[in-house]
Amino acid sequence: MSAVAPLRIALQGELGSFSDEAIQQLWGGDVERRPCRDLADVASAVAAGEADRGVLPLENTIVGSIAGAHDALSADARLAVVAETVVAVRHCLLAAPGVTLDTVRSVFAHPVALAQCSRFFAAHPEVDVSPAYDTAGAALDVARVADPALAVLASRRAAQRYGLAILRDDVEDRDDNQTRFIAVAAAPAPLPAGTPARTMLVLRTSDDAGALLAALSPFARHGTSIRRLESRPGGAPWTYRFFIEFDHQAGDPVADTVVREVLAAAAEGRAIGTYPRWNPGRRGSIGWRAMSG
Amino acid sequence: MSAVAPLRIALQGELGSFSDEAIQQLWGGDVERRPCRDLADVASAVAAGEADRGVLPLENTIVGSIAGAHDALSADARLAVVAETVVAVRHCLLAAPGVTLDTVRSVFAHPVALAQCSRFFAAHPEVDVSPAYDTAGAALDVARVADPALAVLASRRAAQRYGLAILRDDVEDRDDNQTRFIAVAAAPAPLPAGTPARTMLVLRTSDDAGALLAALSPFARHGTSIRRLESRPGGAPWTYRFFIEFDHQAGDPVADTVVREVLAAAAEGRAIGTYPRWNPGRRGSIGWRAMSG
Repeated sequence: MSAVAPLRIALQGELGSFSDEAIQQLWGGDVERRPCRDLADVASAVAAGEADRGVLPLENTIVGSIAGAHDALSADARLAVVAETVVAVRHCLLAAPGVTLDTVRSVFAHPVALAQCSRFFAAHPEVDVSPAYDTAGAALDVARVADPALAVLASRRAAQRYGLAILRDDVEDRDDNQTRFIAVAAAPAPLPAGTPARTMLVLRTSDDAGALLAALSPFARHGTSIRRLESRPGGAPWTYRFFIEFDHQAGDPVADTVVREVLAAAAEGRAIGTYPRWNPGRRGSIGWRAMSG
Repeated sequence: MSAVAPLRIALQGELGSFSDEAIQQLWGGDVERRPCRDLADVASAVAAGEADRGVLPLENTIVGSIAGAHDALSADARLAVVAETVVAVRHCLLAAPGVTLDTVRSVFAHPVALAQCSRFFAAHPEVDVSPAYDTAGAALDVARVADPALAVLASRRAAQRYGLAILRDDVEDRDDNQTRFIAVAAAPAPLPAGTPARTMLVLRTSDDAGALLAALSPFARHGTSIRRLESRPGGAPWTYRFFIEFDHQAGDPVADTVVREVLAAAAEGRAIGTYPRWNPGRRGSIGWRAMSG
């Protein structure tokens, strides 16, 4: 038991979810989880000081960018990204302890999770699927009634949390289903110099010819890698905000110069935070390091 | 009655929807509508020749890009964008003929539509709202039972289609809620030279440093405007496909050169179609004409 009050972490939805898994990866178990209704509520809980940190799912390898997370980041200029982590989305078939797969006839599953496990259900036509929008509620029901015919599709963490047995692990169709989460705080977190880091910017450009490419040109000029570029609607119809992430070493003065020059070239914008990169050796990259020169 | 068989147009969902409105704007009434379950089905109906055209909602001024439409465009290399139109998303309160607002106590509304009309419902606390995922079904019910206490939130087109009266028009919070739809066919449609046109490309870049900026550089070299850039997940985790639209005059050889050079610089990609711009004088622009020189 720590003598220090545990960090209060806001997350969307329920305990045992993949957001909860992200919290476990980032801080371990000794934190206080604050479930929120939606991603905007996660952001406002952090901005208002009701939570010390919040986790937001930023992008998924299959679904792509999560619009609500980007919009939540834009809602309050105090919000700063302070960490990131990547969670492998692995679905398990859970049932009451002692139940085995051969007696299961009905599975509760969130429609998104169900769609990601179509092969398993095609191979098990004897199993009916019932849509469940509240996975935690379904998991609790399955644990409580302890009916050998009932199971629920959920995470490994949900099994631990709700006292369920794992009948089958990794039933998803694709083993590369991953979600990148970010952690936000009400103030930036300084990093030790030399830390492999990533910085996120948001910017809006003017309607002038070449405005966005002009705002991007400092990346090229300084030979700095752009990791990701994402667009969201701007204020007026058919205008856009752009979220940009780029990689650098913490304390590298070139990164500061790039941020300053990009923001100076944009109509408006801000640096949303600098955070340790989750795993610099991970598979794939955007292929979009800016051309130098 | 035309002697020629009417065009068969695939659309997602129900008649009376905003996709149906897009069909009306593009072709008028003398077409055969083919409702499909989802956007992928719209694309495959067109690719398979079961429909002559399909309409896909590409982006909305509030919600942003519609991922499923971009993914549907990628599903079959025969698909070509041949038209676009912008539909104003206007919600109406509909009831059986003769019903007036003062007797309405219960309104059926799709949750997304409901969220876009929050001010109206805040101003009418006497009205209960029931979520309806099938707006057409709710409209039919309201028309059939003709109960003065019942209404449904739907489009002006739905009023015509289901024989309902419009109790209140434009109940949405924001008057700039618009969706841009594209029409797809199984082959490109040539345009008369000089038509104000827009071309869509999709490309995937290599992981090499500078690969995407290199692929974009022909826009800068030829002083060609980029209208929109949208990213979607690539094949491998944390790789991306990019959808790019740019504006030009049909028949301008510079546009052909830009397409050829961009596709040559990308690891893979294709031109998805060239189509008449819906309204070149419309409000706003991406502010991203490429820098020349």
